[in-house]
Amino acid sequence: MEIVLYWGEGSPPCWRVLIALQEKQCVYSDKLLSFDKMEHKSPAVLAINPRGQLPTFKHGNRIVNESTGACLYLENEFKGQGTQLIPTSHDDQAMMFQRIFEANVLAQKLVQVLYYDWRVPQDERHDSAKARNASDLREELKLWEGYMEKASGGFMAGKSFSMADVIVYPYVAFSFYHGLSPTRFPKLAQYHDMLKDRPSIKKTWPSIWEQNTDKLKDI
Amino acid sequence: MEIVLYWGEGSPPCWRVLIALQEKQCVYSDKLLSFDKMEHKSPAVLAINPRGQLPTFKHGNRIVNESTGACLYLENEFKGQGTQLIPTSHDDQAMMFQRIFEANVLAQKLVQVLYYDWRVPQDERHDSAKARNASDLREELKLWEGYMEKASGGFMAGKSFSMADVIVYPYVAFSFYHGLSPTRFPKLAQYHDMLKDRPSIKKTWPSIWEQNTDKLKDI
Repeated sequence: MEIVLYWGEGSPPCWRVLIALQEKQCVYSDKLLSFDKMEHKSPAVLAINPRGQLPTFKHGNRIVNESTGACLYLENEFKGQGTQLIPTSHDDQAMMFQRIFEANVLAQKLVQVLYYDWRVPQDERHDSAKARNASDLREELKLWEGYMEKASGGFMAGKSFSMADVIVYPYVAFSFYHGLSPTRFPKLAQYHDMLKDRPSIKKTWPSIWEQNTDKLKDI
Repeated sequence: MEIVLYWGEGSPPCWRVLIALQEKQCVYSDKLLSFDKMEHKSPAVLAINPRGQLPTFKHGNRIVNESTGACLYLENEFKGQGTQLIPTSHDDQAMMFQRIFEANVLAQKLVQVLYYDWRVPQDERHDSAKARNASDLREELKLWEGYMEKASGGFMAGKSFSMADVIVYPYVAFSFYHGLSPTRFPKLAQYHDMLKDRPSIKKTWPSIWEQNTDKLKDI
C-alpha cells in the first residue's frame, strides 16, 4: 500500500507528518505543493481532501488529512517499525494525550497573531483585538514554558522522544522562527535546541525558514 | 486508582468524557460544577488544570484535561473493558482518526456562531463577521452531512459505534439542540436520532437541554 503525502513548505501541520514518517521509517511518495500557486486547491488534492488543505495524506485507499490524526494513524499502523512513539509508561501516555490535544490551543493562538491581517478583512480589524491576541499568546507560551520547566526528562512527555514531540515541536520551532525571545522563554528555547539536530527533524526542517522573522519578538 | 471528572452541564467536551466513561464501564467520582457560579475557576480545578476549564480529568495522579485526549486515554487504559472504541478494521481506524480531529473544526465553527457576542467585545463586533461565521458553519455542516450520506454503516467510522462517535456525537446533538434544521440536514438528523437512546448517551444527555433554542434555525 502506497503512502502519499501532499504537503506545503513551512506549515507546522505538514511538518509533523514528515517527522512521523521519518521516525517510523516509512517509504512514501512526497508531493511538495506551493501555497502561493494555490496548488492546495488543485483537483488532485480536492479529490481526496474536500477542505483543500495541506497536509493531505493517503495510505492505499485510506485517507487521513488531519495532521495529528495522520501521525497517530502511522504509529498505530507501523507499531513495530522505527521509533516507538507511544511511551511505555502509562503516566507518560497520559501526559502525551494531554499535550497532543493542547497543541491545538497553542496553534490557534499563534495563528490568531501571525495571520491576523490575512484572516480578518480590513474594515473588521481592531488594535484592541490585536493586543488581546498578543496577550493571549504570551499567556499560552508561558504555560508551555512552565510545562518544560517541570518536564524532568526534557521531552514533552517523559524521558524520551514521543508522539507529543512530533506534534508540538513544529509549533515551538515555528515560534522561534518568528522571533520568540529565548531569554523570556529559556526552557522552550532549550527544548528547541535539544531536538533541532535529531535526524527526523533536521532532515525535514523547512528550507524556507533560513532567515527568521521578528513578528513575535515582543511576545 | 480513582477516576475523578470535574464537568459542566451542556458542554459537549464534558459530555464526550461522560460517554466514554459509560462505554468503558468505569467507576468514577463525578463532580458537577456550575459555569454560572464560575466554579471552573475554583482552586480545586485550578490545582490540576491551569486553564481553569472543564472537563478536568484525573486518574490517580495522571491528568488529562483535554476532552478527546481523556477519551483516548480511557480506551487505551481500559482496553479489555466495556465497549471496544477502536474499530478492528484498519480502514475504519483511518476514518476514525480523521473524524476525531476534524471534530475540532466543527466545534470551532459552532463556537464562532453561538458565542460570538460572548467572545467579541461590543465595539469589535461586525455584522459582516457574523454573516461570514454563519456561512462558514453552513459549509462545515454540509461537509458532515455529506460524510453521513456516504457512511455505509450509519456510524461516523464504519459499521459500529466507535471513538469517532464518542467525539463527534455531542456536537451533532448540540447543533440540533440549537435548532439546526433536520430538513436541510437529514442525514445528520438520522444519525442524531439513531444514537440518542444508546444507553451511554441517554444516561448522560444534558438535562439543561430540555427546551431547544432556535439559534441555528437559519443555518
